Amino acid sequence: MSEKLIEPRVLKGFRDYLPAAMLVRERLMGIARDVFRSYGFGPIDTPALEYAEILLGKGGDESDKQLFRFRDLGDRDVAMRFDLTVPLARFAAMHASKLGLPFKRYHLGTVWRGENTQKGRYREFMQCDFDTIGTLSPAADLETLLVIHDLLSAIGFERFTIRVNNRMILNGLLESLDLADKTVGVLRSLDKLAKIGEANVVQELVERVGLTEAAARQILQIARPDATLSELETALSGSEPGMQGVERLRNMFETAVKAGIPQERLALDVSIARGLDYYTGTIFETFLTDLPGIGSVCSGGRYDNLAGLFTKEKLPGVGASLGLDRLLAAMEELGLCNDAATPAQVLITYFDGSRLGDYQGLARRLRAQGIAAEVYPDAVKLGKQLQYADRKGHRLAVIAGSQEFEQGNWQIKDLKSGTSNVVATADVAATIQNLLATPAA
Amino acid sequence: MSEKLIEPRVLKGFRDYLPAAMLVRERLMGIARDVFRSYGFGPIDTPALEYAEILLGKGGDESDKQLFRFRDLGDRDVAMRFDLTVPLARFAAMHASKLGLPFKRYHLGTVWRGENTQKGRYREFMQCDFDTIGTLSPAADLETLLVIHDLLSAIGFERFTIRVNNRMILNGLLESLDLADKTVGVLRSLDKLAKIGEANVVQELVERVGLTEAAARQILQIARPDATLSELETALSGSEPGMQGVERLRNMFETAVKAGIPQERLALDVSIARGLDYYTGTIFETFLTDLPGIGSVCSGGRYDNLAGLFTKEKLPGVGASLGLDRLLAAMEELGLCNDAATPAQVLITYFDGSRLGDYQGLARRLRAQGIAAEVYPDAVKLGKQLQYADRKGHRLAVIAGSQEFEQGNWQIKDLKSGTSNVVATADVAATIQNLLATPAA
Repeated sequence: MSEKLIEPRVLKGFRDYLPAAMLVRERLMGIARDVFRSYGFGPIDTPALEYAEILLGKGGDESDKQLFRFRDLGDRDVAMRFDLTVPLARFAAMHASKLGLPFKRYHLGTVWRGENTQKGRYREFMQCDFDTIGTLSPAADLETLLVIHDLLSAIGFERFTIRVNNRMILNGLLESLDLADKTVGVLRSLDKLAKIGEANVVQELVERVGLTEAAARQILQIARPDATLSELETALSGSEPGMQGVERLRNMFETAVKAGIPQERLALDVSIARGLDYYTGTIFETFLTDLPGIGSVCSGGRYDNLAGLFTKEKLPGVGASLGLDRLLAAMEELGLCNDAATPAQVLITYFDGSRLGDYQGLARRLRAQGIAAEVYPDAVKLGKQLQYADRKGHRLAVIAGSQEFEQGNWQIKDLKSGTSNVVATADVAATIQNLLATPAA
Repeated sequence: MSEKLIEPRVLKGFRDYLPAAMLVRERLMGIARDVFRSYGFGPIDTPALEYAEILLGKGGDESDKQLFRFRDLGDRDVAMRFDLTVPLARFAAMHASKLGLPFKRYHLGTVWRGENTQKGRYREFMQCDFDTIGTLSPAADLETLLVIHDLLSAIGFERFTIRVNNRMILNGLLESLDLADKTVGVLRSLDKLAKIGEANVVQELVERVGLTEAAARQILQIARPDATLSELETALSGSEPGMQGVERLRNMFETAVKAGIPQERLALDVSIARGLDYYTGTIFETFLTDLPGIGSVCSGGRYDNLAGLFTKEKLPGVGASLGLDRLLAAMEELGLCNDAATPAQVLITYFDGSRLGDYQGLARRLRAQGIAAEVYPDAVKLGKQLQYADRKGHRLAVIAGSQEFEQGNWQIKDLKSGTSNVVATADVAATIQNLLATPAA
């Protein structure tokens, strides 16, 4: 054992999660699961490793995706999943007939991309997606909107806006301008609107996509964050898909408000394009009013054909993805995180080895009342035990030495305020519950 | 898009989890998290990929571990983690000074092994470990026992036994027989006791490990499932470590009972050895009384030196690992699983597109009362919607067509019993809560 040590380190672009950070992540994931479940979405999981062919699709551009790809022990060409959408497509193609349609699933899972870490990106991160597959009904689009709303408010955000668009509006406009074949290029340019401004988008549409300046300006006249439904109705009156898009948006907003969503949290925004030509109908992006700069924290939309690579069955659907890392950054910035490194609010200190059964017995009674309680494992000086509680973020310490045991009492010390109560064993749980119900000083 | 399709399939040894299976897994993982947290264990996570050198250690025998190992895009020699213990050792060596000791963590994470799938083994599975690091105190061993107990009972098992041993007993015996250098071989053979029987173990100890038959028999005289503490005390009276092991076991049993653990769930079992010479003190194995054949569902023990490969700091600890896959198999066999494929117990059927806001409004009110409710997305025939509910396992359907809307009523149909109630909107939530509180017929 006197050999040279191996230097403990993690790979570039990867990270450890310590308890304080992980507790916040688990809380967030727990809330997401609860909201998904409350709407009847069921969980699925798929393997981290898949055949590379499945993940890349045909002629897939690997350099875009920077897969972790290798040959396994059986010489198979395999790769680690880079998102949860391609695995969902493969999953749906394999299991749709068994599951039945419509199929509503959520999936919280880790994905891996060998991206350049200089951009501050990690190579391993968690995705959190939900989708309803196998229905064209606008009811599923509305429900997606409701889930996004409930996710954000359950996490604790009050000021946010879900911006909604419908791809049919832009498609209708391009069709009526006879520019349907330029859709992908137009979408790519529009996606940069917030970043590079209107003038630069017009220039790009003319120089790179090949539009006339008049057409470019007409598109931007409609694809504005502040365009109203009535304006759209006038501008698109000649286009059937365009009018249908307007109608669907109007319906969605009205129904959402009827179902109980505050109107001020919803906005029409024809400028959101979400680059991908994968989306064909409703599109969602969600912005925090107090932190608009971090971008959309929950995005998604409707698509026509999820699994065309794997099956002839056309599987339309609608869904969205919660941006966990962005949300965590936002929660930290807005002070929505508790930075305790322990899930237990109570530390029971330890003085007398012969009393361990009493300490653990009390802890078990507290746990039975729903109070998480930790027993310090060593009978060291009280100061050291309280230092531990301070570092970990315990709220209360329960103290009993020989004197307290003689009198059948426990001392409960509020570690934030410094005040103490001495109570009999029978009253410990109730006293603690009262103290925990009061916000920390 | 008329190209040949890619065959949707998963790699050998990997599997998809559909909602019915995943709901049970999530429930199990949720219970485990709650129990760990109630004792003050905090969650951590580590990367799926690590430097191969870290995972293999020095002179690590790769063929044993069947790593998924490859060169990444930066030509680093990397591998996917095959357990959560080596990453914990690396993690502890890196972060112990920041975290402070004792450090209590739990870790639920996926691990990968390219094992031969013919044995019915999967190449991807979840591990669920908890450990207390940085203390030699027997209080931490006791707490490990309590956590194991609370995990099993929180999951819903009532008949189980936690079998406890202490490595010091065997070490003491071998030392007094002057056979300390044969420890590893003796452990390997003893581990097979249940499988191959006493006579074969004796033969192996003589022929393969090189013991005299007398010594082999003396070892087996002590390493018996039914040896008592008093017998051990007599047999080991000459050995200091042996007597210390006996004393620790006696103390642990007494304290556990004092802390509230039913005595019949605890057993001394000097035959459990857990092969690994990694353990140095207490050892735990847990068996379900009704399914002894599936083996231990929660195992662990105390070790002297967790991270010796990575740091000179000696980090002793104690912990255990919950066998999720075994437990799931057991729960299925014992009828502890609900096989519904939806987390929502209520399906709100959908007849009238103009009423979607009312349907979703009702669903939102139910959710606010903690009732998960799904709205069917298409206004198709009732029979088709109820067929969907049947397949997914909804317990109740809420039905409102034009007639009900005129009268301001909702029909609530119990899909198990077939009975219906008609109630006013204001009473829907309370009626549903009452119905759900009654066990399904």
